[in-house]
Amino acid sequence: MCSITNCFQFLYNNQVKIMSSTNGQVIRCKAAVAWEAGKPLVIEEVEVAPPQKMEVRVKILFTSLCHTDVYFWEAKGQNPVFPRILGHEAGGVVESVGEGVTDLQPGDHVLPVFTGECKECAHCKSEESNMCDLLRINTDRGVMLHDQKSRFSINGKPIFHFVGTSTFSEYTVVHVGCLAKINPLAPLDKVCVLSCGISTGLGATLNVAQPKKGSSVAVFGLGAVGLAAAEGARIAGASRIIGVDLNANRFELAKKFGVTEFVNPKDYKKPVQEVIAELTNGGVDRSVECTGHIDAMISAFECVHDGWGVAVLVGVPHKDAVFKTSPMNLLNERTLKGTFFGNYKPRSDIPSVVEKYMNKELELEKFITHEVPFSEINKAFELMLKGEGLRCIIHMDA
Amino acid sequence: MCSITNCFQFLYNNQVKIMSSTNGQVIRCKAAVAWEAGKPLVIEEVEVAPPQKMEVRVKILFTSLCHTDVYFWEAKGQNPVFPRILGHEAGGVVESVGEGVTDLQPGDHVLPVFTGECKECAHCKSEESNMCDLLRINTDRGVMLHDQKSRFSINGKPIFHFVGTSTFSEYTVVHVGCLAKINPLAPLDKVCVLSCGISTGLGATLNVAQPKKGSSVAVFGLGAVGLAAAEGARIAGASRIIGVDLNANRFELAKKFGVTEFVNPKDYKKPVQEVIAELTNGGVDRSVECTGHIDAMISAFECVHDGWGVAVLVGVPHKDAVFKTSPMNLLNERTLKGTFFGNYKPRSDIPSVVEKYMNKELELEKFITHEVPFSEINKAFELMLKGEGLRCIIHMDA
Repeated sequence: MCSITNCFQFLYNNQVKIMSSTNGQVIRCKAAVAWEAGKPLVIEEVEVAPPQKMEVRVKILFTSLCHTDVYFWEAKGQNPVFPRILGHEAGGVVESVGEGVTDLQPGDHVLPVFTGECKECAHCKSEESNMCDLLRINTDRGVMLHDQKSRFSINGKPIFHFVGTSTFSEYTVVHVGCLAKINPLAPLDKVCVLSCGISTGLGATLNVAQPKKGSSVAVFGLGAVGLAAAEGARIAGASRIIGVDLNANRFELAKKFGVTEFVNPKDYKKPVQEVIAELTNGGVDRSVECTGHIDAMISAFECVHDGWGVAVLVGVPHKDAVFKTSPMNLLNERTLKGTFFGNYKPRSDIPSVVEKYMNKELELEKFITHEVPFSEINKAFELMLKGEGLRCIIHMDA
Repeated sequence: MCSITNCFQFLYNNQVKIMSSTNGQVIRCKAAVAWEAGKPLVIEEVEVAPPQKMEVRVKILFTSLCHTDVYFWEAKGQNPVFPRILGHEAGGVVESVGEGVTDLQPGDHVLPVFTGECKECAHCKSEESNMCDLLRINTDRGVMLHDQKSRFSINGKPIFHFVGTSTFSEYTVVHVGCLAKINPLAPLDKVCVLSCGISTGLGATLNVAQPKKGSSVAVFGLGAVGLAAAEGARIAGASRIIGVDLNANRFELAKKFGVTEFVNPKDYKKPVQEVIAELTNGGVDRSVECTGHIDAMISAFECVHDGWGVAVLVGVPHKDAVFKTSPMNLLNERTLKGTFFGNYKPRSDIPSVVEKYMNKELELEKFITHEVPFSEINKAFELMLKGEGLRCIIHMDA
C-alpha cells in the first residue's frame, strides 16, 4: 500500500500546483467526444469553463465504462443528445469549486455519481430514499442545472454533458451534490468502479435484500452488477449463492464472487423459479435481479420462499415492460422491492463503501478485468460490446 | 370492569365443575350445522368427541361472524364440504386437553385461530413468517389432522370441521397449535373478534406497513378489516389516514377509526392512485389494501410515494386475478408486500394484541355493532349479506 499512498500523495501535491494556476480560468484539456450515436469517440481538445454556483471542477484520473454509457452512446429509440461527453464511473481530485460550495475544497478526492444528494429535499431527508428530487438522474439533460448551459465547448460550440458527470474528459464540472468525498488514501484506479455499477449491485444486496448469515440468495444476471450483488451476499455471509445466467461461461468467474451454484434457465423445460424452489426446499431467502429482462424479474420474484422471501429488482427494463404475477404470491408473505443505485445516498454513504474496500471487506480488484490508456477508450467500448470482461479502467493520464 | 371480571371468574369456576364430569367423555351440546350451501344453519344437538393427541376441547362462549364464514357457507365455485360446522372468530375456555398438550390446561381462556403455529417448522422458527407448514389454513379439510376424522357427529354421522376451529358450536375440538392462550381477565365477548379479521387488518399496518408517527396511510376498503388497518394507523400515530371505498356511507363510521379523509374512486375520472398522489404531494407513505379486488390492489401499490412507499396487500383476490404494474414503479424504490393474518403468529403474538386492548391502546368496542343469541345465528348472516355493521357477536349461552 505504501507505493500507492505515495503515488496519491504525489498526485495530490501536483493538483495543488495545477489548481493555483487554473482556478477561475477556462481549462483546455483532452476529452473523448461522442459526435454521433454509435460512432467511435474522438479525443478532442475541449474548453472546460470554471465551476459556477454549487459546482465543482474535477480532474478525472481514472474512469471506467458501464453499460449505461454504451446504451446512451448507441441512443437507440432515444432523443439523441450529441455531441456529448459520456462517462460516469470515475475517480478524481477537486481542482476548484464554485460559489456556495463549502463541503469540498481543491485537492479532495472524489467519486462523481450520476445521481445526487442535495440534502434538503424530502427524499434526502428520508432515511429510506436516495432519489433526490433536485439531482435525481436525468439522462436527457445535457447541461448544468444552474444556468441550463454546458461547461464544455470546442471553439465556442457547446458539447453536452451526460448524467451530470461526463467523466470521459481530463476535467469535468459536476454539481457538488453529485460528488462523494472519499478517503484520500483510497486508490482511485480501483474505487472509481464504486461510482455506479458495483455500488448498485452491492447495495441491492446489503441495503435492500439484507440476507442473513447462512441464508440463500439467487442472483439473476452475472455481469458486473450481478456479481457485485453476489459479492454483497458473500459479505453478508450467505451460505448458498445461486447464480442464474443464460451464459454458462460466466459461472467460473462468478465463483470468485461467492457464487456457489449455477442455474442456466436454458437447461430446463420448467420455469427457472420452479427449478430454484426445488433446489432450495421451497425457494431462496432473497433474490436480486440484475438483467432488466421482464421474464427474469418475474422469475426472481416467484423464486423466493413464501413467508419471508424478499426479491429486489435492480435491472432497468424496456419502457413498455409489464410486471405480472398472481397476487397470491404476494399474499403468501413475499416482498417485492426495487432499488436505485443500491439505495446508497451518494454523499452520505459512498465514502463508507470505499472504507469497506480499504478494510479488505469488499474486494474490487476482481471486477477490473481490463485497463486501457485514454487514447484507446474505444477499445473499452469494443470489449463491452463483445461482452468481454467486467470493468475496463481507462487511465486518463496515459 | 369489575362486573366483567366477576362474570368470567364465575364462568371459570363453572368450567372446572363441568370439566371434571366431561373429561374424556363425549359431550352432547348445541351446534349450528350448515347442511347445505347457502341454506340457513340449523341448531342441532351434536356429539363432540374428546380431544385426541395434541388437541384441545374448548367451550365456546362467544363467536362472531366473518366474511370467510359466509364465503364458505355460500360455497360458490368451491368443492362443497357439507354438513359442516362453520365459525372461526371466537373466545372460549379449555374444557379438556388431549395427549401431549402441555401448554394449556382446563380453565385457560383461549382464542381459536384458523391458522396455527406448531413452533417447530421453518416458518414458525423464522421471525418473519407466520405461515406454519403444519397448521397453515386449510379450507378444504373438514377433519382433524391427527386421524383425518371429525370430532363432531349426529347419531354417528360425521359433521365436518371448518378451518380447524368450528366455533358455531358450544364445544369444539381444536389443535393446540391453533389456540392462543390469553389473559383470563380479558372479556371474551370483546376480544373474540381478534381471532381473525381485526388482527388481520391491525397487523397489516402495525407489523407490515409500519407507518411512522406523522406519516400518511391510505386504506382501501372500509369494512372491518380495513377499519382495523386504519385503527393500526391511528395507533401508530399516522397524521393522515385516507379511506378509499366505493360506498360513501362508510366514511362517517370510519372517522371513529382515525380516518381523516375519504376518497371515493367513483367521484373521479382519473385513476384513484393519481387522485391520492395529488392529495399527498406524490403519494402516501403507506397503503393497506383490504378489498381483494385486483384493481384496488394495483391502485394501492401505485399510490405510494416513490423512494420510501410501502403497499401491503391483505384482501384475498379471485384465483385467476393477475397483478400488473410497470416495473419502473418498483425500481423507483416502492415496496410491495402481502400479509396473512397480519403477520401475527397465533400463539406467540395474539396474547399481546389482547393486552393492547386491556391497556386501552386498541379499541374493540367500536367494531362490535350487533349482538345476537346463538339461537338467532342466521340473523348474523343476514346482517352481513346486507352489508350492515361490522361485527355481530353471537352469545353461545343465550
